[in-house]
Amino acid sequence: MTDGGRSAPDRLLAVLAAFDHAHPALSLTDVSRRAGLSLTTAHRLVGALTAWGALERDADGLYHVGLRLWELAALAPRGLALRQVALPYLEDLYEATHENVQLAVRDGTEVVYIEWLSGRSAVGVHIRVGARWPLHATGVGLALLAHEAPAFQQDYCAGSLAAFTPYTITDPVRLRRSLAEVRRTGVAVSSRQVTDDALSVAAAVRGATGQVAAAVSVVVPQSDAQVPALVPAVRLAARGISRALGWQPDRPDRTG
Amino acid sequence: MTDGGRSAPDRLLAVLAAFDHAHPALSLTDVSRRAGLSLTTAHRLVGALTAWGALERDADGLYHVGLRLWELAALAPRGLALRQVALPYLEDLYEATHENVQLAVRDGTEVVYIEWLSGRSAVGVHIRVGARWPLHATGVGLALLAHEAPAFQQDYCAGSLAAFTPYTITDPVRLRRSLAEVRRTGVAVSSRQVTDDALSVAAAVRGATGQVAAAVSVVVPQSDAQVPALVPAVRLAARGISRALGWQPDRPDRTG
Repeated sequence: MTDGGRSAPDRLLAVLAAFDHAHPALSLTDVSRRAGLSLTTAHRLVGALTAWGALERDADGLYHVGLRLWELAALAPRGLALRQVALPYLEDLYEATHENVQLAVRDGTEVVYIEWLSGRSAVGVHIRVGARWPLHATGVGLALLAHEAPAFQQDYCAGSLAAFTPYTITDPVRLRRSLAEVRRTGVAVSSRQVTDDALSVAAAVRGATGQVAAAVSVVVPQSDAQVPALVPAVRLAARGISRALGWQPDRPDRTG
Repeated sequence: MTDGGRSAPDRLLAVLAAFDHAHPALSLTDVSRRAGLSLTTAHRLVGALTAWGALERDADGLYHVGLRLWELAALAPRGLALRQVALPYLEDLYEATHENVQLAVRDGTEVVYIEWLSGRSAVGVHIRVGARWPLHATGVGLALLAHEAPAFQQDYCAGSLAAFTPYTITDPVRLRRSLAEVRRTGVAVSSRQVTDDALSVAAAVRGATGQVAAAVSVVVPQSDAQVPALVPAVRLAARGISRALGWQPDRPDRTG
């Protein structure tokens, strides 16, 4: 195990990157191994991060992501800041439907879930805040992809389209047709694409410049989904968030 | 401006610390000045943080906290992870009251707000996720402080108690009496302590060990607050979250 060849910032960031959803609590040895650093270096860097508050040490001696990083993350315009603007509209959507309600943004070829409201009685869907999925497999992903630049869509459709269920769209021609449908109707309906039993209805959220900034969706059990009833509610929520972000509906959109 | 004397981790963390609620978007020059680093060093460190995703650069060339930091922060047990467990109960409390609902944890002598649900119609209170307040000035703070070790409470009461309104408790004797009342009743009622027009009702949330882990509150306009009606709802929400965290009511508490 060698620390050589990497810059000081890269080594510190490697310590942070050692933590992920599958590894939220790590011993010093875990950090050293996962970050590819000597135990001495890991010890020094974990110490600096803990003193600053980016990491916290629990009673068992394991390290976790700390509160200070969370406070810093609250400043991310595409994270908690966006979520803060959107939350009242997501709550309205939740109260109107009592189903899982989500807000997501695009990062590269994936969606990242920024918010996820679900009552204790709503359908159990395996999505959590901070989770990532490929764009083509989710309603929010289709809503985001459909409004990207044509070249981006072209590249995405030409790439490898992973299947999560037998129903996931993996055919580029079918995907392009779905995207055209999203642009025509203003909503994306994604049925049994991620799990066998869920259906989502999603719509794009625009920012002040008219550019698509996020997508909002409702996820329901596929078996008794009332799509026509969900569409206006999702559309209304997306427009509400867009307005709160400064979007003006009468201004021509810069995108699709 | 000199970079000397500080370690490499400290310099990188100083770049992150340059961002706060009053300064969410910074130019390279801003970062250099606020972090006390040369422009060359700031340039190199901002570059490393941007490549990693901890910072993002917008169309105007300003840097913001990035999505990757937000994803990492979602792993913080006292941040989004706690919030994820608590959210369904906070939503129930919101639906029952249609008022501002908050979840907070203690960090040193302050409360940090982890979650804040508010409908578009709820009273406008100047609290945001990630905000900090001294323990004695808020309902959640009193609920947390009342269950701390006696020595901690003693030290806190003996310290300087800042006033935010003419009604804020700044007298140690009155504060100690309030804390005893919180322990007796199980709820903290904080009236016009932070602003002239708000009242909060809060209760402590316990974790699996019986230790107080967080506090939940409802904030309403002081003028027409129905405290007796809010108390059972807040208590119920606190117990629900405690149970979800693994608390067992029949086990004797380790604290106050």
